[in-house]
Amino acid sequence: MTPIEGGVTAPKGYRASGVAAGIKSGSTKKDCALIVSETPATVAGVFTTNVMKSPPVLRNVEVCERGTARAVFMNSGNANAATGEVGERDVTQTAEWVAAVCGCNPAEVCLCSTGVIGVPLPMDRIQRGVNASAKALSAGGSLDAAEAIMTTDTVPKERAKAVTLSKGAVRIGGIAKGSGMIAPNMATMIAVITTDASIEPATLRPPLKKAVARSFNRIGIDNDMSTSDTVLVLANASAELPPLTEGSDDLATFTEALTTLCEELAKDLVRDGEGATKFVEIAVSGTESDSDAQSIARAIGLSQLSKAAFFGEDPNWGRFACAAGYAGVEFNPAHISVALDDLTIMHKGIAADYTEEDAASVMKQPEFAVHVSVGDGPGRALFWTSDLSHGYVSINTDYRT
Amino acid sequence: MTPIEGGVTAPKGYRASGVAAGIKSGSTKKDCALIVSETPATVAGVFTTNVMKSPPVLRNVEVCERGTARAVFMNSGNANAATGEVGERDVTQTAEWVAAVCGCNPAEVCLCSTGVIGVPLPMDRIQRGVNASAKALSAGGSLDAAEAIMTTDTVPKERAKAVTLSKGAVRIGGIAKGSGMIAPNMATMIAVITTDASIEPATLRPPLKKAVARSFNRIGIDNDMSTSDTVLVLANASAELPPLTEGSDDLATFTEALTTLCEELAKDLVRDGEGATKFVEIAVSGTESDSDAQSIARAIGLSQLSKAAFFGEDPNWGRFACAAGYAGVEFNPAHISVALDDLTIMHKGIAADYTEEDAASVMKQPEFAVHVSVGDGPGRALFWTSDLSHGYVSINTDYRT
Repeated sequence: MTPIEGGVTAPKGYRASGVAAGIKSGSTKKDCALIVSETPATVAGVFTTNVMKSPPVLRNVEVCERGTARAVFMNSGNANAATGEVGERDVTQTAEWVAAVCGCNPAEVCLCSTGVIGVPLPMDRIQRGVNASAKALSAGGSLDAAEAIMTTDTVPKERAKAVTLSKGAVRIGGIAKGSGMIAPNMATMIAVITTDASIEPATLRPPLKKAVARSFNRIGIDNDMSTSDTVLVLANASAELPPLTEGSDDLATFTEALTTLCEELAKDLVRDGEGATKFVEIAVSGTESDSDAQSIARAIGLSQLSKAAFFGEDPNWGRFACAAGYAGVEFNPAHISVALDDLTIMHKGIAADYTEEDAASVMKQPEFAVHVSVGDGPGRALFWTSDLSHGYVSINTDYRT
Repeated sequence: MTPIEGGVTAPKGYRASGVAAGIKSGSTKKDCALIVSETPATVAGVFTTNVMKSPPVLRNVEVCERGTARAVFMNSGNANAATGEVGERDVTQTAEWVAAVCGCNPAEVCLCSTGVIGVPLPMDRIQRGVNASAKALSAGGSLDAAEAIMTTDTVPKERAKAVTLSKGAVRIGGIAKGSGMIAPNMATMIAVITTDASIEPATLRPPLKKAVARSFNRIGIDNDMSTSDTVLVLANASAELPPLTEGSDDLATFTEALTTLCEELAKDLVRDGEGATKFVEIAVSGTESDSDAQSIARAIGLSQLSKAAFFGEDPNWGRFACAAGYAGVEFNPAHISVALDDLTIMHKGIAADYTEEDAASVMKQPEFAVHVSVGDGPGRALFWTSDLSHGYVSINTDYRT
């Protein structure tokens, strides 16, 4: 697996674009993105578990059930969520416009919208965005697309890999957005991943589920989960290699690469979290099961007090141990140990022998790890989080104004 | 039920005090409190569900199982949590000192500690605090005790009620502390309630459980739950009325008064929440069950994005609806309505007909309500929360330094 340039247009047979259509009010920033596969592609998706699913999410669920897509059109500035029947009608209309400019069936069009909730899409501008983004499509358009889906993100996120399989190489590329409302089980984040591997829908779904569980579901910026979260994977077979089959070594290699790509994009999201000044890996071990470890890692990673301590560069291990204690996992409090990178600060339930200066110096780094062990069990898990800063409060206080 | 003065010393037969013993480092603030009943009192408690229960909490659980207490000694500045065997030994020693100065059995002494986690108690200062607080005991000492248990609280909290029963009046009084780490299921908060009613331990426990469920478990400042949370009720029968018996009208009246008292103290905690500039009531209705309504109210009340919107006085109802959607409760998204006080801003899943100015003017008030209805079911619940402000971040960034 080798890092390559090009994001979603790194795999063969994809074009992408990003244009400004005036949907971000009072702004000339890019706000419409289009990704098109030259040939019909297998598509699979993972979506928000929020009851209040937005109309575009409900549409994508249907497209992924059918399993074939040609185009993904996205807009920022407006989430088309909590928009009722108007929102549903707008989704149908947008898909028809996209299908017309891409020369495909509307049933093969996925849509993602992100931004303010509760306001109907400005359909005249959406139509302008569809037309302009179709005209702008290019084999080097991934970064424009990545820019066009940004909301409070400060940098575009794209990644790509070349993966060597038994009969030759395939490529996987992705773009992602989302820097707030990132919480367990997919928050306001959108990721679109493309590959030129050949794979049937039923074979693509389990690797995607696994990759998301180990990446986007392991990050947290705040405790909110949006109505719009979407991860889509398109596989268009343009590498002209045999289909990946269940149980094959090639599928295992592909799944590993897909997981790594998603993990990198997920970490990029945390690094660009709203107001984030720190990237912190929470590594938990010693539980009975991996899912118990994940519960503890998540409780620490989403604890406002722990995140405030990260911002304050304060080695307040009591907060981390305390969050572990309310994660809903039984463990012996006399067995918990906490380390900052390699420095043990809590050992077997009490303060370890360390200096505040050494601990603070670990936390002064922009990136560090909090290791928590709660016993001798085989369970382990990772979670990636940011700090809770004044910047976070400012961004979320002023977002609409 | 009539509001009266005097806090925990409003009921007959109690004395209280608060003194400074140097436990809050570098401070001359009060940090030790003592509450003593002249006669052995029935005692019941509700405690943190955190796995990392502090040694004082574990002790109080045992005292409440036996059901009799004479004294509650409390210190701020140090939580005696995550202190291992040293912490357990210090609890035993402190109870012996308290018993000696109060002339009771150590088994009748409850202890509460709040403050920094992971540092052993400064036992020389604790001993000084026990002796000084015993000397300072008085029938008017409730406010001193309320001050002595403050950590990041900015004001002491005390409440008392006179309650007319069939054979005469009893009094209920309480003090409480805790302005951060206040989350569902009891966060770093301590409340001690006294009454001169006569009631057996087994009869006292259900009313306390009910009162806590409707008060302290309905508030949230952040999403953290501490290792030290404690609510204790002492009932010393000094009103010289017949014991309250199960199923009696008098017990129902007493339970209502206890619930109201706890509710008032809980609201006092939210109003003094770390950095709080708003007091917001979340009122949810239309669910199948009350517990479903409570889940939705809690999700909104603890949502960082909703709390940031409260701080920003931004009627961003999409955030409230979104939080309702991830509460784990099924409902029809086309049936959700949201109102700020009497102003409907979301109706049946979409924006209602309102002006941003009217909505913002509701949110400019220091206290307002968010009403959320999700259907026609009989379930309803309340939750009280504060906003997420720059002050919260500052307090929790600098707490130890």
